[in-house]
Amino acid sequence: MIQTNPFDDDKLREECGIFGIIGTKDAGAHAALGLHALQHRGQEAAGIVAFDGQQFHSHRAMGQVGDNFGAESVIARLRGHAAIGHVRYSTTGETILRNVQPLFAEFAFGGFAVGHNGNLTNAHGIRTELIRRGAIFQSTTDTEVIVHLMAKAEGDVVERLIAALRHVEGAYSLVCIARDKVIGVRDPLGVRPLVLGELEGADILASESCALDIIGARYVRDIEPGEMVVLDGKRITSLRPFPKLKQRFCVFEYIYFARPDSIMEGQSVYDARKRIGAELARESHVPADVIIPVPDSGVPAALGYSQEAKVPFELGIIRNHYVGRTFIEPTDHIRHLGVKLKHNANRVHIEGRRIILVDDSIVRGTTSKKIVEMMRQAGAKEVHMRISSPPTMHSCFYGIDTPQPDKLLAHRFNVAGMAQFIGVDSLAFISMDGLYRAMGHPGRDAAAPKFCDACFSGEYPTRLTDLEDGAAPTQLPLLEIA
Amino acid sequence: MIQTNPFDDDKLREECGIFGIIGTKDAGAHAALGLHALQHRGQEAAGIVAFDGQQFHSHRAMGQVGDNFGAESVIARLRGHAAIGHVRYSTTGETILRNVQPLFAEFAFGGFAVGHNGNLTNAHGIRTELIRRGAIFQSTTDTEVIVHLMAKAEGDVVERLIAALRHVEGAYSLVCIARDKVIGVRDPLGVRPLVLGELEGADILASESCALDIIGARYVRDIEPGEMVVLDGKRITSLRPFPKLKQRFCVFEYIYFARPDSIMEGQSVYDARKRIGAELARESHVPADVIIPVPDSGVPAALGYSQEAKVPFELGIIRNHYVGRTFIEPTDHIRHLGVKLKHNANRVHIEGRRIILVDDSIVRGTTSKKIVEMMRQAGAKEVHMRISSPPTMHSCFYGIDTPQPDKLLAHRFNVAGMAQFIGVDSLAFISMDGLYRAMGHPGRDAAAPKFCDACFSGEYPTRLTDLEDGAAPTQLPLLEIA
Amino acid sequence: MIQTNPFDDDKLREECGIFGIIGTKDAGAHAALGLHALQHRGQEAAGIVAFDGQQFHSHRAMGQVGDNFGAESVIARLRGHAAIGHVRYSTTGETILRNVQPLFAEFAFGGFAVGHNGNLTNAHGIRTELIRRGAIFQSTTDTEVIVHLMAKAEGDVVERLIAALRHVEGAYSLVCIARDKVIGVRDPLGVRPLVLGELEGADILASESCALDIIGARYVRDIEPGEMVVLDGKRITSLRPFPKLKQRFCVFEYIYFARPDSIMEGQSVYDARKRIGAELARESHVPADVIIPVPDSGVPAALGYSQEAKVPFELGIIRNHYVGRTFIEPTDHIRHLGVKLKHNANRVHIEGRRIILVDDSIVRGTTSKKIVEMMRQAGAKEVHMRISSPPTMHSCFYGIDTPQPDKLLAHRFNVAGMAQFIGVDSLAFISMDGLYRAMGHPGRDAAAPKFCDACFSGEYPTRLTDLEDGAAPTQLPLLEIA
Amino acid sequence: MIQTNPFDDDKLREECGIFGIIGTKDAGAHAALGLHALQHRGQEAAGIVAFDGQQFHSHRAMGQVGDNFGAESVIARLRGHAAIGHVRYSTTGETILRNVQPLFAEFAFGGFAVGHNGNLTNAHGIRTELIRRGAIFQSTTDTEVIVHLMAKAEGDVVERLIAALRHVEGAYSLVCIARDKVIGVRDPLGVRPLVLGELEGADILASESCALDIIGARYVRDIEPGEMVVLDGKRITSLRPFPKLKQRFCVFEYIYFARPDSIMEGQSVYDARKRIGAELARESHVPADVIIPVPDSGVPAALGYSQEAKVPFELGIIRNHYVGRTFIEPTDHIRHLGVKLKHNANRVHIEGRRIILVDDSIVRGTTSKKIVEMMRQAGAKEVHMRISSPPTMHSCFYGIDTPQPDKLLAHRFNVAGMAQFIGVDSLAFISMDGLYRAMGHPGRDAAAPKFCDACFSGEYPTRLTDLEDGAAPTQLPLLEIA
Repeated sequence: MIQTNPFDDDKLREECGIFGIIGTKDAGAHAALGLHALQHRGQEAAGIVAFDGQQFHSHRAMGQVGDNFGAESVIARLRGHAAIGHVRYSTTGETILRNVQPLFAEFAFGGFAVGHNGNLTNAHGIRTELIRRGAIFQSTTDTEVIVHLMAKAEGDVVERLIAALRHVEGAYSLVCIARDKVIGVRDPLGVRPLVLGELEGADILASESCALDIIGARYVRDIEPGEMVVLDGKRITSLRPFPKLKQRFCVFEYIYFARPDSIMEGQSVYDARKRIGAELARESHVPADVIIPVPDSGVPAALGYSQEAKVPFELGIIRNHYVGRTFIEPTDHIRHLGVKLKHNANRVHIEGRRIILVDDSIVRGTTSKKIVEMMRQAGAKEVHMRISSPPTMHSCFYGIDTPQPDKLLAHRFNVAGMAQFIGVDSLAFISMDGLYRAMGHPGRDAAAPKFCDACFSGEYPTRLTDLEDGAAPTQLPLLEIA
Repeated sequence: MIQTNPFDDDKLREECGIFGIIGTKDAGAHAALGLHALQHRGQEAAGIVAFDGQQFHSHRAMGQVGDNFGAESVIARLRGHAAIGHVRYSTTGETILRNVQPLFAEFAFGGFAVGHNGNLTNAHGIRTELIRRGAIFQSTTDTEVIVHLMAKAEGDVVERLIAALRHVEGAYSLVCIARDKVIGVRDPLGVRPLVLGELEGADILASESCALDIIGARYVRDIEPGEMVVLDGKRITSLRPFPKLKQRFCVFEYIYFARPDSIMEGQSVYDARKRIGAELARESHVPADVIIPVPDSGVPAALGYSQEAKVPFELGIIRNHYVGRTFIEPTDHIRHLGVKLKHNANRVHIEGRRIILVDDSIVRGTTSKKIVEMMRQAGAKEVHMRISSPPTMHSCFYGIDTPQPDKLLAHRFNVAGMAQFIGVDSLAFISMDGLYRAMGHPGRDAAAPKFCDACFSGEYPTRLTDLEDGAAPTQLPLLEIA
Repeated sequence: MIQTNPFDDDKLREECGIFGIIGTKDAGAHAALGLHALQHRGQEAAGIVAFDGQQFHSHRAMGQVGDNFGAESVIARLRGHAAIGHVRYSTTGETILRNVQPLFAEFAFGGFAVGHNGNLTNAHGIRTELIRRGAIFQSTTDTEVIVHLMAKAEGDVVERLIAALRHVEGAYSLVCIARDKVIGVRDPLGVRPLVLGELEGADILASESCALDIIGARYVRDIEPGEMVVLDGKRITSLRPFPKLKQRFCVFEYIYFARPDSIMEGQSVYDARKRIGAELARESHVPADVIIPVPDSGVPAALGYSQEAKVPFELGIIRNHYVGRTFIEPTDHIRHLGVKLKHNANRVHIEGRRIILVDDSIVRGTTSKKIVEMMRQAGAKEVHMRISSPPTMHSCFYGIDTPQPDKLLAHRFNVAGMAQFIGVDSLAFISMDGLYRAMGHPGRDAAAPKFCDACFSGEYPTRLTDLEDGAAPTQLPLLEIA
Repeated sequence: MIQTNPFDDDKLREECGIFGIIGTKDAGAHAALGLHALQHRGQEAAGIVAFDGQQFHSHRAMGQVGDNFGAESVIARLRGHAAIGHVRYSTTGETILRNVQPLFAEFAFGGFAVGHNGNLTNAHGIRTELIRRGAIFQSTTDTEVIVHLMAKAEGDVVERLIAALRHVEGAYSLVCIARDKVIGVRDPLGVRPLVLGELEGADILASESCALDIIGARYVRDIEPGEMVVLDGKRITSLRPFPKLKQRFCVFEYIYFARPDSIMEGQSVYDARKRIGAELARESHVPADVIIPVPDSGVPAALGYSQEAKVPFELGIIRNHYVGRTFIEPTDHIRHLGVKLKHNANRVHIEGRRIILVDDSIVRGTTSKKIVEMMRQAGAKEVHMRISSPPTMHSCFYGIDTPQPDKLLAHRFNVAGMAQFIGVDSLAFISMDGLYRAMGHPGRDAAAPKFCDACFSGEYPTRLTDLEDGAAPTQLPLLEIA
C-alpha cells in the first residue's frame, strides 16, 4: 500500500491541537473554525464541547474537522456562548471514539470537559493507583487521570484542577470548560504552546495564532509557562499556582510542527525557518546550481538558504494535491514501477545540475531516499541534502509521535552512514549551536538550554516516571474496542 | 408471521435482551447468533464483549445484530471462549453509543463487563451520591451504578457484584464476564426472565429459550429469582445471596414481549397466548362470522379464540413485509389518502361480515383506530375487538418502554369510551382473573399475586425510590452527545 | 454464508412489478407507494419516471422502494401529474444501474419511458439485427429492443409502440409514459397481470390490485389480453391492435407470486390458495394431529387444508422477522451447528405428534429438507408434506427466475425420490386437474388449457425463438460494469 | 505547493483528462495511476474500461480517482492488457453517472469505448438529426454523437472512427479502445493536448506527460494535430486522415491548466510560467519590497518575476491544506467574520511593506478581492497585482468551463475598473504580445496566431455551429436523472 495521507508518515507528528472561546454567540462554530486552522496538529479525530447556559453539547468524530463539523446541523447543536475543542492524532489501534477529546465528566458541581495537548509522564502509575481505589476509567488516554484526580479533590473547579495538576508530570497545555468558565493552563516548563486571543469582547485560547487569524481575532499574548487563566466572558484571571521554572519550549514547533503563519513566543515561525535555512547555508554550503525544497515543509528553510547562499531557488519537486484515502499497489508488476503518487521531479531544473535539497528533518529516511532516487532518475549531476534540524535520535515523551529509536535513521547511522543510506553526494544537518543561534541565542547553554531539544540531545526536562517504572508508553489496553 | 412487530410504535416495548456463553470456541459468534434470536427485545443497538484468555474484545453498534455482527471481520475480532452480549431499545435521545451495553470497566482485579435487562428504581439517588464521592460516570444508564458500586467494594468479582446488588432496587437480569467467568443473576422477584442452556459442554445464559434453539442448544432450566450462577466453563456454581421472596414474573412477557416459540417458567408462550385467547372467548364472545388476528402478534390468541368459539379464523389483514427505514408522506394531498403502508384488508373475508379482531393489547389506540377504519372501508358489517390483556393503565418502571400515562388510552377512557374512540361495535379486554386462570391459577390472589401486573393493576412489587424522591425517570442529561 | 434475504432463495421469483398513474398531483409519490405495495414482485431495484408538463424526472436505485423513495427530497424531484414505476429482481451480475427500469429514450417526438413485467423470447435475435444496423444499446435488458424498434418506426408514440410490439414474442405487461400519456399493454396471451384502477379522477395501472389499495384507489378491471389502453388523464382509450387469442394467465400468480390480498381476474388470491389447500386435502389427506404451514406463503393453503380435513391448524414454525443483510457463518465450528436464523420449531405442537406441513411449492428442495429436519429434531412422530402446486419441472421463459432444470428437485426425482430427499414420511403434490378444479374449471383441458402452466407441463404457449436459435437466455454481456 | 487549486471556484476549469495504455499486464491499474496524475484536469468523476482479450470491464464513479480506484477489488476487476480512462469535471446537474466516460457501445464488430477531452461545437445539430433517424442516446454528452456516427458508418473500427470525425467540428483529443486496439486522435488544430509514451514495451497515450512520469514511463512525443495513432501492443500506426491545418494549441494550458511538471509541445510548463512572469516584470514592474505569489498556481510566475525584478520572493500567503468537503457558515454572526478558511496572511512579510501579488488569471475577481482585503488587514503599505495572462473576456467552447461572459470581471470593467473592484493600488496583465514573446514568438501574428487564445481575443479557430444555430451550449435535457 502506498501511503497517501496528506501528512507524511516519514515525519514526526504533533499529536494534538486545542481551542477555547467564551463570550460570543456561536461559540461552537468559532471552535470548529479554530480547529480547522489547527488541523495540521491532529488529523484523525476532532471534538467540541459547548455550553449554552443550561446544558453541555458535544460532538466528537473520527476524521477531519471539515468533514465532520462543516454541516449546519452539527454546528446548530453545538450552541452556546462558550466552547472548547480538540484535534487529535494518535497511534493505530488507540484512536477509538471513546479516546477522542474533549473528555467530559459529571462532577458534584456539574459538568466539566478538558482538551489536552502534550503527554503526561506519570499517568500510568496514577491510573493504576486510582483504579485500585475504585475509579472507573472511560478511556485509555493519559488525560483522564486529571479528571479523576479532580473528582477526588475538593473545592470548586479551579481548586480541583490545580490540586490535580500538582500530581502530574510531563507536558500539558489544557483548555477546560465548566459551565460559565473556560480555563487554560500550560505546564511549568511551557513545553507545548498556548496563546491568548480576543475577538469583539470574546476571549480565546488556541495552540497557535493561526487559529485566531482564521476568525479575524487578535493575538494578545502567549500563556506563560505554569500560568492558569480563567475566562468567564468578562474578566481574564491569571493564576500562578505552580513553582516558577525556566521555560523549555519545544524547538521542533519552530522547525516543523507549527504552521508557518503562526507567531510563537513573539517570533514568526516562517522567519525562524528562513533564519535556520540561512544558518545552514553558512555552516555547510557546497557549490551548486539550484536550491530545491522538499515540499511542502522545506520551503521556508530553502528560501532562507537560497537567499543566503545566492543560489537560485526552484520548485524542483512538484507535489500532487490529490491523494485520496488509500491507493493500493495491487500487483508485483505495479509495485516494481516505483510509482510516484505524491511527488514528481520537475526535470527541467534537475537534469545535468548540481542540486541542494533542503528539508526540515530526517526521521526514518525512507522518503528522503525515494526523493533522492527520483532526482537521480531525473538526471541530477550531484545531489546534496541539507537538513534544518539536528539529527533526530531520541523519542519524545511530550506529545509528539516518534518512532521507536531503532527506527530513527540518526539512531542507526552517523551522518556519513545516513548519507550513504539516502544516496546523496553530501548530507549536513544544522548544528545544535547553529539552531540556537538562528533562534537568537549565542548557542546552546548546556547548563540551561532555552528549549526542549530532547529529541536531538536526549536531555529530558522532566522526570519520565512511567518509563523508569517499566511501564510501556502504550500498554496493551485491557479492552480492544471497535 | 406472528412476531413482535418490528415497527409498530403503538406497542409497549421490551428494552433489552441478554446472552452469555462460556466453554466453546467462537463464543463471540455464538453470542451474535443468540442476540439475533433476541432481536425482538431491542432493535436499536447491540454489543458483545468476548474474552480470549488474555484480552477482552468488544464491538458495539447502533442498529440491528444482523447488520452489524454479520461480517466475518467483526466476528473474527470477537475471539475467545467466553462472551456476553446485549441488545437494546431505548427512548429517543438516549441511545447513544456510550450507553450501548455491555458496559466495560477496568478494575484492580482486571476487566469486567455487564449486560442488563430490566431497570433499577433507585439508580438516580445512588449515582448522585457516587458522583459526590468522586466517581466519574461514562454513560447515563442506570446499569453503571452497579459497576461503580463494585469498584468501591472489596473482594473478588463475585463478592463485589453481590455487595453492589445489595444496594440496588428494581428489576434486573444480568450477564457478566470477568476473565474466565460468566455470571448470571436475576433479581429477588424474578421480574425479567433468564434461562440456562447447554451446548456440547458450553454453558449458556439467555433471556429466552429461542436464543438457545438458534444454535441448537438445550434448555436446562430458568435461573431462579434471586439466584446467581457462576459459570467457569466446567462447573456451574449456584449462589443464593439475596433473601428469598415470592416470584413476581412479568406477565406481559407471556402476552406480548417474548417470542411465541420460547418456553418461560416451563410454559410455552404460544400456548399461553392461545389459552388467553380461549379464555377471552369464554368471557366475552359475540356472534360473528370470522375471527381475524391483528398481525402479527395477535395470531396465537386469535387461534385460541377461534378454536374455543368455533368461528373460522381467517387472515383478514395482510401485512406488507417490506417496510423500509422511513417513508415520508410528502404532501397534504398524499396524507389525506390514508396510505396503508403496513396493512391491507383482505376484503373477501370482511365485506358484509361480522368480524372479531383479536389483538394482544391497546396502548395509545392509534393503530387500532386505523385498522378498524380499514375494516369499515372494506365493508365489514360489524367490527368487534377482543384484547388478550387487561387495560394497560400504568407505567412500567422495570425495563419496558411505556408512554406517559396520559398517553395510554385506558388511562384516558373507560372501556365504552375506548370502544368509541377506536370505532368498534364492541370492545372487551380479558379480565384480570381470566388472565390468571389462563396462566393456570384460580384467579388473581390480591394478597400475593403470582405475577408482576403493575401496568394493569398499578401495584408495583418494589419500592420506586427515585420516583418518590422526585427524580424524573429520564432526567435531562448534563451532556448531550452525538 | 447463510442466506437471510426476506425472499427465500428456494422459491421461484417474480422478476418485476409495474405501476402507472395520470391525472393527479404528486404522481411520483403515488407511484412510490404503489411500487412499495408491489415490492414482493422485485426487491433488487426500483425506478420512477415522472412528467411535469415540461420535463421528465427520473430516479432509479438499487435496493428496496422504502429505502430509496421514502425521502422527501427524492419525491419532491419526481414532480408531475403523470408517472410510471418499476420494481425489479434480476439474476446476479446483471442488476446494474443501467438495467434498472423504466428505460428512458429521447425520440424525435420527445421523451418516452417504459417499464416491463415479463420476458421476450426473441429479443436476442432482434437486438443482434438492430446493432448490425447501427443501433447503440444502453442496457442488456430484453425490453430495450422495444424502444429501438419504436425509434425505427414511424408515426406517433402509439403507432410506434404497436409497430414495435408486432415484432416481439413472449410475455409482457407494459406501462409507458410519453409526455401527457400513460399507456398500458398486455401481451395477446395475457401471461402476466395488469389491472386498471381509479382514484379521484386519476387513472392507474398496476400489476396487482394491492397497489391500488395502498393509496385507497378503486379496482376497475383487468386489462385484457392483447389490449392497449391509452390514458391522458381525462379519457381511457382502449385499443385492440393484436389478433385475439385465448388467454393463458400464469397460474403460479395464484399459487405463490401475487399478494394474498390481491384480486386477479376477479378472484381473491387468498381464497384461491385456500381452495387449492382444500382440494389438496381431498386428494391426499393422511391421518394427522396438526396442520402446520411453512411460513409465510403456505399459510392460506394450510388454512384451507385444515378447514377441509378438520385437523387443527397451528403455527408450528416461527419465523424470525429480523434478518439483516447478511450473516456469515465464520467458522466450521459454527457451520456444524445448523444455525436456525430464519425459522424455529414451536416444539409444543410438534413433539410426539403426526404433522402435515403445507407449502406452496418445492424448487430445489433445500429449504424443505432443512425444515423437515428441524421438525424431526423437535420430536415429530410423523412428518408429511403436502404441496399446493404440481411438481415444478421446467424453466419459465416469461419473467420468472427459475433455476436451471437440473437444479429442480422435481426434474431430478419422482415423487418417491423427492420424499426420500426431503426426509418425509409421505409427500404429495396437488394434481394438475385438482389445481384446475380449485380454480373453477372441470380439470385441465389438454387441448386448450386456461392457464400458462409451462413450469409444470412443459407446454409453452409461445415460440421460444432465441432458445431455438441457440442463444443462451443470459449471454455473457460484452461489457461488465460495476 | 504549486498546483491547480482543487477547490478554487474562481478559476477557469479544464473539463477532462484522458489516458490509454496497451501491451502490459495490469493495464487497468496503470490507467488508474495515470488518471490520478491527471486529477487536476477533472475532479468530479472518473472511469476506466479495460479489455482482457475476451471481455471489457468497466468501472465509473463520481468522485476522485484515489477514492474510487484505489481499492484492490476494483483494480482486480479491471483486468486486461489494454485500458483507457477518463477524468471529468462538469457543470452542476449534468454530472450524472450516465455521462461519466469512457462511453461504451456494442457495435456489430464488437465492443468500443471512448474518452474525450475537448468539446464539439456542432454536436447538438448532429444529435437532433440522429434522433430523427432513430438513434437512442444514452447520455447528454457531446461525445456520444461520435459513437452514433460510427454505428451508422461502415468498415472496421478505424474506418468508422475516421468517418465519424469527418462530421464533427470543435476540439477533441480522444482515446478509444476496441478489443486489441487502443486509438488516439487529436483534432486538426490540436487545441487540446495528447502525448505518446512508452514503458517497457507498452504504448501509452495521456493528456499530459506527468501521467507518464507517475508510472515511470518515457515521454516519446506529442501526438500531432490531426493525427490518429493506432496501437496494438506491438506497432504504432500513424494515420493522417484529416486535412493539414496550422496548429492552434490552447495557450491557457501553459498559463494555468497543465501541471507545472508537464512537458507540452516540448516546453516545460513550469519554465513557460516563469518566463511569462519575467516578461510581466519587464512590462509592468513598480517599486516594491516583496513579490508574493497567490498560492498555489501563481508560484512559478512569481518566481520568474522576482528573479527578473530582483525583488525578494516570499510566501506571504499561507494556504491551509485541509479543506474538507464543505464548510458551512451557519449564521450571520459567523459570516460577518470574513472567515479565512483557505488562506492566511503571513503578516511578517506584509505589514508595512509594498507588495506585488502575482496570480495567473482573474475570472470573476471574487477571490482576488478577498486576498487583497486580507493583505490590507495584515498591514500592507501598497498592494499591486500582476497577472500572467491577458484579461479573460470570452467564453471557451473547447472544453474549458468558463462562466457566462457577464460574470467575467474583464468583461464588465476595463483594467482601471478592475483595479478599483479588487482594491489594489495598481493592476497589470501581461500583454498579448508579451505572452507570445514569453512563449518564444516575436509577438502575436494577428493573421495566423500560433495558439488558441479565444478567451482573450474572442477569435475562435473553428466554426461555432450550434451557437450560430441558436442552440444553448447546455440545453435543458429532456430527462433529469438522479
